[in-house]
Amino acid sequence: MLITPGKILAGIESPEDIKKLDQAQLVQLCDELRHFIIDNVSVYGGHFGASLGVVELTVALHYVLNTPSDQLIWDVGHQAYGHKILTGRRDQFHSNRMYKGLSGFPKRKESEYDTFGVGHSSTSISAALGMAAASKYLNIEDKQHVAVIGDGALTGGMAFEGLNHAGVSDTNILIILNDNCMAIDPNVGALKDYLTDITTSKTYNKFKDEVWNMLGKLSMFGKSAQEIVSKVENGIKATLLSQSNLFESLNLRYFGPVDGHDVNHLVSVLNDLKNIKGPKILHCITTKGKGYAPAEKGNATTWHAPGTFDKITGEIYKKVYNVPQAPKYQDVFGHTIVELAKANNKIMGITPAMPSGSSLNIMMKEMPERAFDVGIAEQHAVTFSAGLATQGLIPFCNIYSTFMQRAYDQVIHDVCIQNLPVNFFLDRAGFSGADGPTHHGAYDLAFFRCLPNMVVAAPMNEAELRNLMFTAQLPREAQAFSIRYPRGQGVMPEWRTPMEEIKIGTGRKIRSGNELAILTIGHIGNYAVEVCERLAKQNIDVAHYDMRFVKPLDEAMLHEIFSTYRKVITIEDGCVQGGFGSAVLEFMADNLYSAEVKRLGIPDRIVEHGEQYELHHECGFDPEGIEKAVIGMLEHA
Amino acid sequence: MLITPGKILAGIESPEDIKKLDQAQLVQLCDELRHFIIDNVSVYGGHFGASLGVVELTVALHYVLNTPSDQLIWDVGHQAYGHKILTGRRDQFHSNRMYKGLSGFPKRKESEYDTFGVGHSSTSISAALGMAAASKYLNIEDKQHVAVIGDGALTGGMAFEGLNHAGVSDTNILIILNDNCMAIDPNVGALKDYLTDITTSKTYNKFKDEVWNMLGKLSMFGKSAQEIVSKVENGIKATLLSQSNLFESLNLRYFGPVDGHDVNHLVSVLNDLKNIKGPKILHCITTKGKGYAPAEKGNATTWHAPGTFDKITGEIYKKVYNVPQAPKYQDVFGHTIVELAKANNKIMGITPAMPSGSSLNIMMKEMPERAFDVGIAEQHAVTFSAGLATQGLIPFCNIYSTFMQRAYDQVIHDVCIQNLPVNFFLDRAGFSGADGPTHHGAYDLAFFRCLPNMVVAAPMNEAELRNLMFTAQLPREAQAFSIRYPRGQGVMPEWRTPMEEIKIGTGRKIRSGNELAILTIGHIGNYAVEVCERLAKQNIDVAHYDMRFVKPLDEAMLHEIFSTYRKVITIEDGCVQGGFGSAVLEFMADNLYSAEVKRLGIPDRIVEHGEQYELHHECGFDPEGIEKAVIGMLEHA
Repeated sequence: MLITPGKILAGIESPEDIKKLDQAQLVQLCDELRHFIIDNVSVYGGHFGASLGVVELTVALHYVLNTPSDQLIWDVGHQAYGHKILTGRRDQFHSNRMYKGLSGFPKRKESEYDTFGVGHSSTSISAALGMAAASKYLNIEDKQHVAVIGDGALTGGMAFEGLNHAGVSDTNILIILNDNCMAIDPNVGALKDYLTDITTSKTYNKFKDEVWNMLGKLSMFGKSAQEIVSKVENGIKATLLSQSNLFESLNLRYFGPVDGHDVNHLVSVLNDLKNIKGPKILHCITTKGKGYAPAEKGNATTWHAPGTFDKITGEIYKKVYNVPQAPKYQDVFGHTIVELAKANNKIMGITPAMPSGSSLNIMMKEMPERAFDVGIAEQHAVTFSAGLATQGLIPFCNIYSTFMQRAYDQVIHDVCIQNLPVNFFLDRAGFSGADGPTHHGAYDLAFFRCLPNMVVAAPMNEAELRNLMFTAQLPREAQAFSIRYPRGQGVMPEWRTPMEEIKIGTGRKIRSGNELAILTIGHIGNYAVEVCERLAKQNIDVAHYDMRFVKPLDEAMLHEIFSTYRKVITIEDGCVQGGFGSAVLEFMADNLYSAEVKRLGIPDRIVEHGEQYELHHECGFDPEGIEKAVIGMLEHA
Repeated sequence: MLITPGKILAGIESPEDIKKLDQAQLVQLCDELRHFIIDNVSVYGGHFGASLGVVELTVALHYVLNTPSDQLIWDVGHQAYGHKILTGRRDQFHSNRMYKGLSGFPKRKESEYDTFGVGHSSTSISAALGMAAASKYLNIEDKQHVAVIGDGALTGGMAFEGLNHAGVSDTNILIILNDNCMAIDPNVGALKDYLTDITTSKTYNKFKDEVWNMLGKLSMFGKSAQEIVSKVENGIKATLLSQSNLFESLNLRYFGPVDGHDVNHLVSVLNDLKNIKGPKILHCITTKGKGYAPAEKGNATTWHAPGTFDKITGEIYKKVYNVPQAPKYQDVFGHTIVELAKANNKIMGITPAMPSGSSLNIMMKEMPERAFDVGIAEQHAVTFSAGLATQGLIPFCNIYSTFMQRAYDQVIHDVCIQNLPVNFFLDRAGFSGADGPTHHGAYDLAFFRCLPNMVVAAPMNEAELRNLMFTAQLPREAQAFSIRYPRGQGVMPEWRTPMEEIKIGTGRKIRSGNELAILTIGHIGNYAVEVCERLAKQNIDVAHYDMRFVKPLDEAMLHEIFSTYRKVITIEDGCVQGGFGSAVLEFMADNLYSAEVKRLGIPDRIVEHGEQYELHHECGFDPEGIEKAVIGMLEHA
């Protein structure tokens, strides 16, 4: 079902067409754009609240700016649906986030209007500043450089690094702070409080009250004194707004706050700002889900990416199953940490801004004093966890694999070098699915296994995850312990199994075979089970080992394997360069084994978005690909 | 030569002894501590300016706090020499930074007073907050948690992430801002300007002037009006100081600025702050090199870590050589980038706060509009470079290998996924030497080679570095290009060789041999040259290939090698897990070769500090170790 755009929107093939409109038509365009997004997302799913929140800003920006020559960068990019629809991608928009379809994020390959690919937060200021510095160096004067960044993304340290440079950069960069008090979950931290504070003018009002109390006494001196008092007050207001502001402290001229849903006012403000030299920030107040009542009034986290829904009633569709379903790994984590924490009062939970995504919100609700959402701040999350560990507590620090890249130094410097017993849970390891390459957890096995004092594990199913979690909270002196698992469902509808310790560095033999052994790590091992069963029916017996640990490897098991089998296939939902299979090759070389080894996993290229199984298929490690690899190896001598 | 401490210092075996002193003796203790540091560093070398700058703060902290129960964290740790000397390590202090001696940084293994290991910047707030949060959870009320952080370190985004959490943390953490306007090089950025501004009260004064001008008009109303005006002014001052401050914006109570060299005042302020609840910041103004005239008056960057010097004259000793010496790789980089940039106006230089360390300061001086010091902000440095690259410029982004860990996500997300032609120079790759494990560049080959769209190269000598730099600036559409080299001298006194392109992914055959081939990457290949020559004299002919690229590997050369030799040794100044040798194993497996392969490199454990050759020896890949490995492999069939 293709969505029909409204009349004005139907005529917008590029921002050029927006500029041809009367300004009076912009409100109508915003309305149509909003409906087009609602219509599309309700049918096809995707991110929702953020894009609705910036409809007016998007229209105003493309009306005022000369894109793509003027450069516009959307931080994170969840909010860029309107931007995509207005920049020539309206008619492909139904393919958003689908395999071979449009990306859910701005992406340079997709459009010249997407000046910088995004996905992870807090990058936009640095990128825009790089572009602005280039313009300055190249003496290009008629180009605007605009970064739109949310208040959540602004908590990421990288954004602060960008601000610190921007403030002394002598460029004309414009940073638009899209302040909706939300990351995916409600935004947290002192900066959020501050933004609320300046928005509601609490600081100014408190100050004014104090001064006014004193100045009030001057009223005894008659009317002319009162006039002067009034002037003083205005002077204080102007000075306070221009000088006492956090952003002004960093030498960015601060404008706002302005209503981010008044498109005409935005046009006027943006036109003014075009001509103001120097680095500057415009503080825009917006509402996530604006204009769609169920989202505006409902839970903003739910409406961040609600899936498909009935646009009339606002009812979010839930799949109905006839048989019990396996839980999401996320929920197994969320419930199991609470279960363990009830028995072990040293366990603490930490998430950088992903309480609902990681399901740590279950612990945050049940034991708020023991679960921390530290904001979009992976670096801080890791070192904060290390600090907790020095005091004998047991941190369970849950960070998506892809975001762990941002805390890599802290893992090395503050955890591994100090050999502290911190536990890391790498959620959404392997292909992330529809979010695509910015969010694939492709590299963690490679970048963690090269670190000393680091255990690298991955469970094949829910019971294994629970056992690994149980093991991670047992007393130990040292060593970081990392446990990775994918986004989505496991395989065990009856997952609340009793927990037991797993000896670190031990694998599991799933089945024996002749000639060839498959070695898997993590959930992807279930594909191997399927393949082995299928092959067994053809009287091909292939061995399967769930290695469970990439580091330390189960050397006893590997000795058994390489003494028995001359052909080995390794499978991992991770990059084959330097990953699990590579670790197996190192064992082989170190122990002078020779065997034919084929490594299946994510190849050495950027894999785009799609359903996880589609990407596994594309990369040749879905059941079909695995079977083909087995048959191929068995066919030759 | 052991340094004799002064009388009071001689009696200080632990901070307990400081507490026994009359407060009147603290000035004398500071004086003796300062002299002890000067005496030691002048003879043994080490970091200098930073520790002299915090002598009074160190003494005051240990006088007032109940360390080690109270927890004190020194950010970076260059400034912690006084802390080490006062906490039981005075008599080992001459071994500072030497192999098997004291670490140059605080280190948990070394002392219970070192509550958190440091080295990289901006970690202290997060670590202290973790400890404070643990105390809060454990209901420990009588414990202070203090982070001492420099104004340079505060520019690192991670510090901001910590502040953002601290401000809402409901802990009693004290952050001491040690403001000396310096990182290793002069601090840069908007925050620095702001700190100078509030220190000199410019903001307040400007504001006061404006208000005063208006209030002045009230004087016509006589004396009682003037009194009220005066009260108003005080009210404004109090309100401004408490509310208009950047730190207060983040809900940290701000105190200061105070003179960081007045030990008695510091004692009094710290005693007061002990009893003030909530997160707070004390702004301390200090002078790097304080109390040693040549350092105070001279170049603060030079005196950051001057090497040995004549403490009377302030003359820094320079080694005198009878033969021409090879240059440092750093200087080859610094001069060559200027040489190339003169011919290619697209080249831009970027460093995160290491202008002198990387020698990019040469370019900053010669072409300031094309070389950026962005502050301690590796993440920003990479994405800023990516922004430049989108505009057709050619960034040469120079980041120490160990600090590149902090920009790993930006390399993946903003450069590799977008396939942008950014050039990375990884300085101090391999063992860093005396700085030790926090600064070893041990992991970069492993963590970069697993990334798509990334070329990984390392030059064996100065000419090769110049050729790789020449190659990196030639026009190319895509691909990141990383070039790693070690700290210190190369091997070519005549290093200004004409430059030529190196075909990406091609190695060099250094010599042929029988039976066994040595494959090296980077500078460490010079050890192999030495070994091969020595063995040749014993009629043992060993082949040697300088592979030059870890990615893409020279596959033609590897086919030749594995078709010819059954024994192969790989050598890298990097971790053997997942590194260069591992890449060679992958080639071998993918191409069904079998051979005996021994991988030499940094083993899977934390290697401490020492001279580079000492560490190479310890890890078995100095010439002796390599020769032993060759002989060992040749001895068996």
